[in-house]
Amino acid sequence: MRADERQPYQMRPIEIDTNYLMHPEGSVLITVGKTKVICTASIEEKVPPFMRGQGKGWITAEYSMLPRATGQRNIREAAKGKITGRTMEIQRLIGRALRAVVDLDALGERTIWIDCDVIQADGGTRTASITGAFVAMTEAVHKLYLEKKLSKYPIKDFLAATSVGILEDGNVVLDLNYIEDSNANVDMNVVMTGNGEFVEVQGTGEESTFSYGQLQQLLKAAQEGISAIFEHQREAIGEEATAKIEENGTK
Amino acid sequence: MRADERQPYQMRPIEIDTNYLMHPEGSVLITVGKTKVICTASIEEKVPPFMRGQGKGWITAEYSMLPRATGQRNIREAAKGKITGRTMEIQRLIGRALRAVVDLDALGERTIWIDCDVIQADGGTRTASITGAFVAMTEAVHKLYLEKKLSKYPIKDFLAATSVGILEDGNVVLDLNYIEDSNANVDMNVVMTGNGEFVEVQGTGEESTFSYGQLQQLLKAAQEGISAIFEHQREAIGEEATAKIEENGTK
Amino acid sequence: MRADERQPYQMRPIEIDTNYLMHPEGSVLITVGKTKVICTASIEEKVPPFMRGQGKGWITAEYSMLPRATGQRNIREAAKGKITGRTMEIQRLIGRALRAVVDLDALGERTIWIDCDVIQADGGTRTASITGAFVAMTEAVHKLYLEKKLSKYPIKDFLAATSVGILEDGNVVLDLNYIEDSNANVDMNVVMTGNGEFVEVQGTGEESTFSYGQLQQLLKAAQEGISAIFEHQREAIGEEATAKIEENGTK
Amino acid sequence: MRADERQPYQMRPIEIDTNYLMHPEGSVLITVGKTKVICTASIEEKVPPFMRGQGKGWITAEYSMLPRATGQRNIREAAKGKITGRTMEIQRLIGRALRAVVDLDALGERTIWIDCDVIQADGGTRTASITGAFVAMTEAVHKLYLEKKLSKYPIKDFLAATSVGILEDGNVVLDLNYIEDSNANVDMNVVMTGNGEFVEVQGTGEESTFSYGQLQQLLKAAQEGISAIFEHQREAIGEEATAKIEENGTK
Amino acid sequence: MRADERQPYQMRPIEIDTNYLMHPEGSVLITVGKTKVICTASIEEKVPPFMRGQGKGWITAEYSMLPRATGQRNIREAAKGKITGRTMEIQRLIGRALRAVVDLDALGERTIWIDCDVIQADGGTRTASITGAFVAMTEAVHKLYLEKKLSKYPIKDFLAATSVGILEDGNVVLDLNYIEDSNANVDMNVVMTGNGEFVEVQGTGEESTFSYGQLQQLLKAAQEGISAIFEHQREAIGEEATAKIEENGTK
Amino acid sequence: MRADERQPYQMRPIEIDTNYLMHPEGSVLITVGKTKVICTASIEEKVPPFMRGQGKGWITAEYSMLPRATGQRNIREAAKGKITGRTMEIQRLIGRALRAVVDLDALGERTIWIDCDVIQADGGTRTASITGAFVAMTEAVHKLYLEKKLSKYPIKDFLAATSVGILEDGNVVLDLNYIEDSNANVDMNVVMTGNGEFVEVQGTGEESTFSYGQLQQLLKAAQEGISAIFEHQREAIGEEATAKIEENGTK
Repeated sequence: MRADERQPYQMRPIEIDTNYLMHPEGSVLITVGKTKVICTASIEEKVPPFMRGQGKGWITAEYSMLPRATGQRNIREAAKGKITGRTMEIQRLIGRALRAVVDLDALGERTIWIDCDVIQADGGTRTASITGAFVAMTEAVHKLYLEKKLSKYPIKDFLAATSVGILEDGNVVLDLNYIEDSNANVDMNVVMTGNGEFVEVQGTGEESTFSYGQLQQLLKAAQEGISAIFEHQREAIGEEATAKIEENGTK
Repeated sequence: MRADERQPYQMRPIEIDTNYLMHPEGSVLITVGKTKVICTASIEEKVPPFMRGQGKGWITAEYSMLPRATGQRNIREAAKGKITGRTMEIQRLIGRALRAVVDLDALGERTIWIDCDVIQADGGTRTASITGAFVAMTEAVHKLYLEKKLSKYPIKDFLAATSVGILEDGNVVLDLNYIEDSNANVDMNVVMTGNGEFVEVQGTGEESTFSYGQLQQLLKAAQEGISAIFEHQREAIGEEATAKIEENGTK
Repeated sequence: MRADERQPYQMRPIEIDTNYLMHPEGSVLITVGKTKVICTASIEEKVPPFMRGQGKGWITAEYSMLPRATGQRNIREAAKGKITGRTMEIQRLIGRALRAVVDLDALGERTIWIDCDVIQADGGTRTASITGAFVAMTEAVHKLYLEKKLSKYPIKDFLAATSVGILEDGNVVLDLNYIEDSNANVDMNVVMTGNGEFVEVQGTGEESTFSYGQLQQLLKAAQEGISAIFEHQREAIGEEATAKIEENGTK
Repeated sequence: MRADERQPYQMRPIEIDTNYLMHPEGSVLITVGKTKVICTASIEEKVPPFMRGQGKGWITAEYSMLPRATGQRNIREAAKGKITGRTMEIQRLIGRALRAVVDLDALGERTIWIDCDVIQADGGTRTASITGAFVAMTEAVHKLYLEKKLSKYPIKDFLAATSVGILEDGNVVLDLNYIEDSNANVDMNVVMTGNGEFVEVQGTGEESTFSYGQLQQLLKAAQEGISAIFEHQREAIGEEATAKIEENGTK
Repeated sequence: MRADERQPYQMRPIEIDTNYLMHPEGSVLITVGKTKVICTASIEEKVPPFMRGQGKGWITAEYSMLPRATGQRNIREAAKGKITGRTMEIQRLIGRALRAVVDLDALGERTIWIDCDVIQADGGTRTASITGAFVAMTEAVHKLYLEKKLSKYPIKDFLAATSVGILEDGNVVLDLNYIEDSNANVDMNVVMTGNGEFVEVQGTGEESTFSYGQLQQLLKAAQEGISAIFEHQREAIGEEATAKIEENGTK
Repeated sequence: MRADERQPYQMRPIEIDTNYLMHPEGSVLITVGKTKVICTASIEEKVPPFMRGQGKGWITAEYSMLPRATGQRNIREAAKGKITGRTMEIQRLIGRALRAVVDLDALGERTIWIDCDVIQADGGTRTASITGAFVAMTEAVHKLYLEKKLSKYPIKDFLAATSVGILEDGNVVLDLNYIEDSNANVDMNVVMTGNGEFVEVQGTGEESTFSYGQLQQLLKAAQEGISAIFEHQREAIGEEATAKIEENGTK
């Protein structure tokens, strides 16, 4: 049993509030345990210079934390005048992950800007961001679809993420909170699609290592967790968008 | 009658959710019409170098907007690597305003960091930030009081702010929303204390000017609005904190 | 009586040297007591990207201090790599104030760059900058007029600024020098036009507040001071430019 | 067969020139196919502020490319004034990987600065950097050992890295060159220790995904490649350092 | 004869106004033809960290131009957020040149900050800056001497600078103005001491070269010009300071 | 005799490895004693905006040091976020020197980017960079010539550089190593062309001065050294390029 009374392979409660803000084309507040992230998707009717004239779309992501999302106030990156390596890694990961399930040709020459702003952090902020961003993006894309601006539905499959890890006592656990994460020997983030394929597997020993057997256990835990998250996403995006995505999956 | 059916001197609905986040010493979500700002107050047990050894406290504020708080996505200041002039003006204003009602000697050698992050913007974000920040700050200071870390209650009076303006049709109105603000000839932000004194009066003609008579009308509208806001603040901070502040006011 | 033997509502001596530099289209050295500011106006025959094709002009201002304009050497902003909040506030104020008295349509698609560089500071540098910049701008615009590049004279009215404040002893004074300014309870900058209207009123309690009655006194002092400044401006810009501006005022 | 006539699981030729530069405590030029990286290790007799007084050491890494390490000249990060996200990711990865095989307590309060500068790039620069940095670090640490500055040999195991991937034709290949890497569907970097454990597994679908079966194949290929690299590292560091490390491994 | 009717070896008129500003310890306005530079010297009673505890002083210089010192407005370095290579070269040159005639041990642990701000530019701004800065520095140092804060007079000799060049017609000329400088084939800055020694010789072919014979002519012209400048400096610093410096020279 | 047993006017051994890297159009590793610099030349088929449409080419240079090129690790300029004054001076010098021997009209609208990256530093890195960059540039330009992209051979003459100086004992020496350079009273860099003309003469007293007689000696030493370097350059660029350059020289 874990400190917060969960079983090793048990996720924290998840909630996804859709249409959370008035301005963005898509926006959710995702809550995973005590972690809360506002994810928005903005449609821009052009692409970056290096992609112009190819008829393809682009998806890019930014990630940030409010200064008091954490126990100790952290200095704003705007005040420091530069973005930390951690933030860069996370925003590159989010963008790359979303692009894996979107048919960029079907999107047309548009950019989807994803913004993930962590309001409250208790571990797993990058995976919650991916999970929430998928819903915000689908909300925004579905509006384009309803406005008949798309020749083809561009979202090819569901996408969600979670963290798994090996605690100091050697136990493999799913969906680590902040305390667990700080003390884990191995930390792994896994991003998967609705059809059970991997998009990202990032496992890291923290001044520690892991065996092939442990790697297999970690992936199994991640698969279980992510399957559960897909149910929340289905509910959040609604029946019509779910049907359109599953139709793409069948093809 | 205004576009959103308000009377000229009528404010938009206000809500102040206290204890909004788990980590900060004080935190609120303030809603003024469709404008929503998360205000947090963080206590740091030291002061900036230029104030050390004087036994006095300090209050400093930072302000930011989520990229999609607005109709059009705005580029993050962290991505630009620098803070805009507008942001600097606002965060200097918030800090200065709060310091006017705090006895910095009574606070002791501590810094209160105020963070105002606009989640959704529809005009009046700087005045909503001041109003909300006062409540978050009081929440944090009251904790210090309950922990018996203060020899004297440092908050001397209530503090709230609103905007007033002159529309293109020449009408003086209270609490402008974004559309009104964009088209106003004159825009004025007023910060006042519970005892009816001014802390800041910032009136600006936008490629326009205003007479002494109009200035008087603007201030009258502001006074009415701010009186109403104090009721919301009293309720938000609760009876005990209200009593402690009023006790200071009497002296 | 004040430390430098002035009456409360007495300004310091003002001098405005016109055509101060050889290169700029307009340039003055303005002296207000011991405060000295070089103000230049540069005409650029294009406008910023966001204004192109509208047939309108633009006015923008920059402000800086030499490192030893002050008692203690201050680090150059170029060396720090960023502009302070104070500088940004001041340069936004100067630009906004000047735009209030210029008919941007009559200016045509041109930018006027105003540069205010403080050579020696003894309080009131931002208001001296506005007062001087108005003269430099008029010098530059008048050259355009003499070169017959304007269909209509674009300057609609005179514009000048001064500071007023409440000292620690409760006295309302006009045109504060550095020592007075550092110790004042309330500091107010007022920008007015030749016809007696306000463009900016920025009153700030410095860890202090002010009543409605005090606000009225402050504005009265400012009005008196600014009326006197207009005489200096008239003389500096000469009869022809004065006549052209007054003609616009009558309309 | 691959474009450069290699078998799918065949690595490119590797060379490690030790003691490559006169100033650093450890330095190598590592060549993997046409990829060439100068790796240096510098010993500093103190640790960063956040670690002082714990008696522990620290290892940190920086990574850069010469502008013409690549086919197209890339702008220097010093000229841009900021470090790209890609560079940050790589330098964080290198530092983390090395720390996994070093007993930081045995190192004492010292920092090892690793610098990896890519002279010529043809794919796999980050994994070549890790492999080369391990040798440079061992060279530097071994000097400390010979100078009798260490109570215990701090390097616990060998460490090397390689890339594996899935090409567009679905084939799993080892040690991708630039052309292969640019067109791969899946790209994976694997860092392992001498005893066969994983330190990092970073697999990424590039607008693509991968199955559990493919993941297993990728890891198998990586294991084979890394085993071969350990032979080159043994030879490069020499018998005495190899013996000291293997002694630690046995314990 | 030159465009402005000077002989080849004739300097432009020089004026040095001393005690130009109220705050700095030393300050001059130097005018060389139409070039005008404000030079100030500020005494700080400490040295940079790398020099502490050696009992020696330090001299450092900064250089800047007002945006409209030139025919075309140039963007402020503070607005760009970085200092250009040209500015860096000049401020390094000024500091180095001054240090050559100051006994840093006799100065004691103090820093002299030199600021050269070009108000109006017409060629030769860097050499005018050196010539003016020498006078401002002497003014400041002489105050220390009069306050009896120095055990020994630290200025060892006079120091002045001028430019020489080869025009397109092959003529060697002294003290080039902006038009001459822009079209010269060879441009040389020379800094000399009162006893006729060189401190800096910086000759540059601008897409051109020069022979040994031409170099000799350039140096001869520079020597003549600088001799004349010393007369102006003597007058500016006054008899007492001149005597103290010459006393040092004799030794 | 000098510390490393050289005669006063004796250079250190020079080696120039051509075609050092696979990607750049021109690339050399130049070794002067223990100083090693990688110089590359990249051809870009366009010029900077300020030169477009003139049919002329441009040459620009960048210079950097690896962090451990020196005895003590120096912080990367990319990590600091800005380029030091020393680096700027050097890269401006390199570009200016090369442009003196290139017919920019004959080059056509192309930019040659020169990159000099110091791998190992032992004095004279800027002069070794110029000498090596000339060879890399010629290699790149000669490729354009062989591809028949040039109507005229643009390199007009050879170009090389060396340092000379006056040691503390008063001796004039050629090609100073790091130890000599650190302690020299006078340091001079000289850049010359194949026909014996000067391009740059930069002599600097380091808290010291030099007489006209010493200047003559320094230039003589530099001339001798540079003559020897031309032999190495001839050999490095080969007979055909040498012949083309000499042909230009004759005209």
